[in-house]
Amino acid sequence: MNKIDNNAAVLRTAEIITIGDELLNGQVVDTNSAWIAQHLGALHISVVHITSISDKPKAIQEALRQAEERADVIIMTGGLGPTRDDITKAAVAAYFGTTLIRNETVLAHVEGIFRRTGRKHMPAMNIGQADVLANATVLFNDVGTAPGMAVERNDKYFAFLPGVPFEMKFLMENRVLPMLHGMHKNDVFVYNTYLLTVGIGESHLAQQIADIEDTLPPFITLAYLPRIGMVRLRFTSEGTDMAYLTSVTNSFKQQVVERLKEYIVSVDNVSFEEVLVQAFTTAGITLSTAESCTGGAISAQITAVPGASQMFHGAAVVYSNQAKMDILGVSLDTLTQYGAVSECTVKEMAEGAKRVFGTDYAIATSGIAGPSGGTETKPVGTVCIAVAGKSETKAQTFHFKNDRTINIERTVMAGLTILWDMLK
Amino acid sequence: MNKIDNNAAVLRTAEIITIGDELLNGQVVDTNSAWIAQHLGALHISVVHITSISDKPKAIQEALRQAEERADVIIMTGGLGPTRDDITKAAVAAYFGTTLIRNETVLAHVEGIFRRTGRKHMPAMNIGQADVLANATVLFNDVGTAPGMAVERNDKYFAFLPGVPFEMKFLMENRVLPMLHGMHKNDVFVYNTYLLTVGIGESHLAQQIADIEDTLPPFITLAYLPRIGMVRLRFTSEGTDMAYLTSVTNSFKQQVVERLKEYIVSVDNVSFEEVLVQAFTTAGITLSTAESCTGGAISAQITAVPGASQMFHGAAVVYSNQAKMDILGVSLDTLTQYGAVSECTVKEMAEGAKRVFGTDYAIATSGIAGPSGGTETKPVGTVCIAVAGKSETKAQTFHFKNDRTINIERTVMAGLTILWDMLK
Repeated sequence: MNKIDNNAAVLRTAEIITIGDELLNGQVVDTNSAWIAQHLGALHISVVHITSISDKPKAIQEALRQAEERADVIIMTGGLGPTRDDITKAAVAAYFGTTLIRNETVLAHVEGIFRRTGRKHMPAMNIGQADVLANATVLFNDVGTAPGMAVERNDKYFAFLPGVPFEMKFLMENRVLPMLHGMHKNDVFVYNTYLLTVGIGESHLAQQIADIEDTLPPFITLAYLPRIGMVRLRFTSEGTDMAYLTSVTNSFKQQVVERLKEYIVSVDNVSFEEVLVQAFTTAGITLSTAESCTGGAISAQITAVPGASQMFHGAAVVYSNQAKMDILGVSLDTLTQYGAVSECTVKEMAEGAKRVFGTDYAIATSGIAGPSGGTETKPVGTVCIAVAGKSETKAQTFHFKNDRTINIERTVMAGLTILWDMLK
Repeated sequence: MNKIDNNAAVLRTAEIITIGDELLNGQVVDTNSAWIAQHLGALHISVVHITSISDKPKAIQEALRQAEERADVIIMTGGLGPTRDDITKAAVAAYFGTTLIRNETVLAHVEGIFRRTGRKHMPAMNIGQADVLANATVLFNDVGTAPGMAVERNDKYFAFLPGVPFEMKFLMENRVLPMLHGMHKNDVFVYNTYLLTVGIGESHLAQQIADIEDTLPPFITLAYLPRIGMVRLRFTSEGTDMAYLTSVTNSFKQQVVERLKEYIVSVDNVSFEEVLVQAFTTAGITLSTAESCTGGAISAQITAVPGASQMFHGAAVVYSNQAKMDILGVSLDTLTQYGAVSECTVKEMAEGAKRVFGTDYAIATSGIAGPSGGTETKPVGTVCIAVAGKSETKAQTFHFKNDRTINIERTVMAGLTILWDMLK
């Protein structure tokens, strides 16, 4: 086992290599890499490259060679299961010019797992799980049968971990991150801080703060992370003096906050729904929804936030006119005169939801999400939204385009944005 | 614009390159790659490598160089937003030894988008979005401002797409996949056919059809595409005689259908919700939901299907006990005696929804989605589901685990599965 050299080079960059055909054919979304990147980021190690490859010796060795050129820390996950570990571990051993040796402690552990699960016979293929790289520090895996391995060579750190998410996380948290933390004391710091904006497009936003962005010092970068109806901004700074970094970065962030005031929803790294749930809970006020074209999507997004039951009373999804009348008390006159997709109807829906659910606010939606159902005066994409507040009800008509899914998403965001504007 | 060469080499392998610091620092999970891989897989193009890199010219060019060595099709996503596209597009242009030219059709489209959203002035930086690689076929983006681009060179196909998932999907479905499909025509034929199963796990399913799978000829492959509560099977076959391919593949598919009868939901490539909407519409019957822990997620998923308004009348999301009583007529006695999370309560909720919305069927859910709210007798993950049908109401209790999002997803699938079983 290599000992950590106190004068070791600073570990600044990392590369993640994930192995598995299930990643390459799209059966499984690679969530491991984002998790690893976040946790390395907390140690100020920046991931510069993420690669998914197949379980072939040549691909594994080529990926390791390229990663070793690019990064100081290389984390490889997957390919260590009982059916496939021979090939992966042998390929890695060849890469390092070393051999595999049987580790008796690991073998006893693997046998123990089979005994505990009540299976008498451990399949022969599992014996191979106790074979480890001769040059590695074994990372004991308390939660599975495949051990991890760590190798240090030429001031580079390699970790080989199973791909099963909870085993990978266990080994990262209990073995790899503590090792990296110990190796890292004299490093540079990286500071990230966020802003969430709604109601302004990415390019308008960039234009409004262009002069501030121009004055950013080279050690601060600003990233725009857009989604439908919102843009998240991320300031990243890097240097040796954490107090200085934080203070300079926050002063630029503050300039942006002042410039964009009306569009700023949060100065933390949270979702819009979380901001709303928090704001309602703190103010002790409550919300309900009356949804036609969004079909419950606003309600579903709000209630996906833990603790939403504190401020959310319920939703009425009223697809039929009958339900609009029966449940929310929309008048037949309004429906006949103005139609289901009208500002008058959504106003009555919002006020009905407020009354029926006994809430302080209510959002109502009605529209033609598509792909069919459009008319000449109300084409697909026509959406009316109302928000009933404490003293007034606001309604607005939108003209989106053709895609049903996107129209629903846009309507959800527009409804939440109107609500947010009324709350302010 | 390059024309497709009728004698072009067969496109067999692909590499996906995703650009973005938000992927490398773990803020965003790369879901695009899995989606692209699945859709290329359906054209029998295997992804051999997935890479995430930062928005730096050197990284972009190096990734393209390596991908071009390894794969026939290279899909690059991200880095095309208005604030950043100069650097990415310029880097790609340099890689191809070409220049950027202003495309007037794209410019008119981008200006049109700004006009339609009611903003008078398009920011100057958006003009750059109309600059495209001089050697590229422009992939018009109906749903956003960043155009995609396709380049063919030395029998390799490159596509450059925005990273925003719905824009990427639009361009893949409407531009890239049809082009790739067309390039395949004079080659070999690829035939894909699907089965959708619910209520059986992947490994049990594989075990049940192992003997059939063993007899598949080498030109037919079977892929298992599992999601929560369902497994999609894809048969892919490749050869020069389409009639023969279709007939042989369908005969194997038929064997699997007969073996798995009770679990088969569809023999087409459709979603479970689409199957249900179709089945209800065809039978002329109607559905409503009464949702507590799912918060409208069942309703939102059903109504995301075009035409759902034919069979779906509405939903009552009743988070509070008061709303359960007021809107659905659940009795105070039941709530007091058995609690909100009980089979008695969900039965009354389902029957209430059936009555209030005047439907033939209704699904009701109530549970402790987490992370808090659990008790000793009803820990987090306890969920009760009822389905009221024409003549009876069935209720069932489930014990899921700790994650709120997954518990909600599992509940949605379990509710739809019980409904499906009652319909059969």
